[in-house]
Amino acid sequence: MRETPQQHNVQNHKLIISYDGTPFGGWQIQPNAVTVQSLIEKAITTLWGERYTLQGSGRTDAGVHAHGQVAHFQAPVKFKDLNELRRALNHNLPKEIRILDCKKVPLTFHARFSAQGKEYHYLIYNHEIMNPFLRLQAFHQAQPLQLLPMQEAIQHLLGTHDFASFASNPGYARATTVRTMQAVQIKKQGPLLKIRFRANGFLYRMVRNLTGALIKVGRGRITPGDFKTILEEKKRSAAPQTAPAHGLYLMKVFY
Amino acid sequence: MRETPQQHNVQNHKLIISYDGTPFGGWQIQPNAVTVQSLIEKAITTLWGERYTLQGSGRTDAGVHAHGQVAHFQAPVKFKDLNELRRALNHNLPKEIRILDCKKVPLTFHARFSAQGKEYHYLIYNHEIMNPFLRLQAFHQAQPLQLLPMQEAIQHLLGTHDFASFASNPGYARATTVRTMQAVQIKKQGPLLKIRFRANGFLYRMVRNLTGALIKVGRGRITPGDFKTILEEKKRSAAPQTAPAHGLYLMKVFY
Repeated sequence: MRETPQQHNVQNHKLIISYDGTPFGGWQIQPNAVTVQSLIEKAITTLWGERYTLQGSGRTDAGVHAHGQVAHFQAPVKFKDLNELRRALNHNLPKEIRILDCKKVPLTFHARFSAQGKEYHYLIYNHEIMNPFLRLQAFHQAQPLQLLPMQEAIQHLLGTHDFASFASNPGYARATTVRTMQAVQIKKQGPLLKIRFRANGFLYRMVRNLTGALIKVGRGRITPGDFKTILEEKKRSAAPQTAPAHGLYLMKVFY
Repeated sequence: MRETPQQHNVQNHKLIISYDGTPFGGWQIQPNAVTVQSLIEKAITTLWGERYTLQGSGRTDAGVHAHGQVAHFQAPVKFKDLNELRRALNHNLPKEIRILDCKKVPLTFHARFSAQGKEYHYLIYNHEIMNPFLRLQAFHQAQPLQLLPMQEAIQHLLGTHDFASFASNPGYARATTVRTMQAVQIKKQGPLLKIRFRANGFLYRMVRNLTGALIKVGRGRITPGDFKTILEEKKRSAAPQTAPAHGLYLMKVFY
């Protein structure tokens, strides 16, 4: 008879993670790169003396930040108080990565497959002179961006669409490129522009591709109508350039 | 007859400078350290083909930041449009340093000796888990700080006092250790605590020493009355530890 995880007193742990993506080769473990996943797995190995796989809600590219990445790992019960586990993990991680929360979840919980949606923010610093403190945390746009056409353009994203025009590598994504955009919002606070995207799922580089196109709208290079046409063409070649990684933040994963 | 600067068409330039102090050995030129002053002087040398001395309003220590450091240099007129000079300087500087403004000022203007006062901010991140994005831009205090006693303590600083207890190296300062504190304020925004100090001048490490003592007050280790007593003792040995450099910002120099 096969043993079930319960018999070994295995517990499923859900982590909420914040990281400054600057020094890392992204989330996912890969050869010849220091990644967030590899560092957290290493911290787990240090605490348990044995390796357990950490599963993230999804990859983030090199340089992309997170305020609310989610991951899970199953391991034998070792810490009764999970705040203590959180502290022990943080103690074994570089300061660029912080475990914000650590919770016990049912064994059926899967950080990626249980996810119902995500929220990303993209930060643009729109001023002639870049703020040196944000140089690695926001995308610098020296030319003024017009907010109104950008606001108009994002309305076209709401609801269910085929976002193939904004998927950098459609083959990488699951079969369909259809997603439902639940909320998009642009807020300006001084020179800082924050674009918030909430959807049931995102294609590869979708937020950065959408932002690249929205910047074109803000600079008057294309109209909100052109933006809608790009979406409707459903092919990547129709869309403008990708905005860089360092303005992007994974804010929240919904379950 | 000696030539005056006017005869050579010399102009005095006032710069307002922002820098992330993290990678630098402070403001002032010194051997074996990359400093903000040395990098800006190098940029000036690149543009003029000749070296001109840059005089700052005062030193900032290694790791200390600035949103409004002021400096001046005298050099022959080369750029009619000083926005163009600002852009050229920024083009020749690392992204951690930005010239925010460049103005023509009278030859009598001296960044240090003309200064009437300064404003510094000290940032404390008061939460069990440090925000990874602020790890080099605010001082982490994991234990809760009580705001009310800190608010009470800072009232004792207002007005003219001998601040010798808060001068790390009184010999370094000009003869007197008497200064006039024009404003002190503590503001809390979420986990971020901002202490603002405005005075007609500051002694060496005065803000960091004051902040170190205020943190003791916030943690209940000393009372606002003890804080007053430390001030009145007028000797450095009476005061607690210095808060670290990376929470400190030179915000503004008044002329």
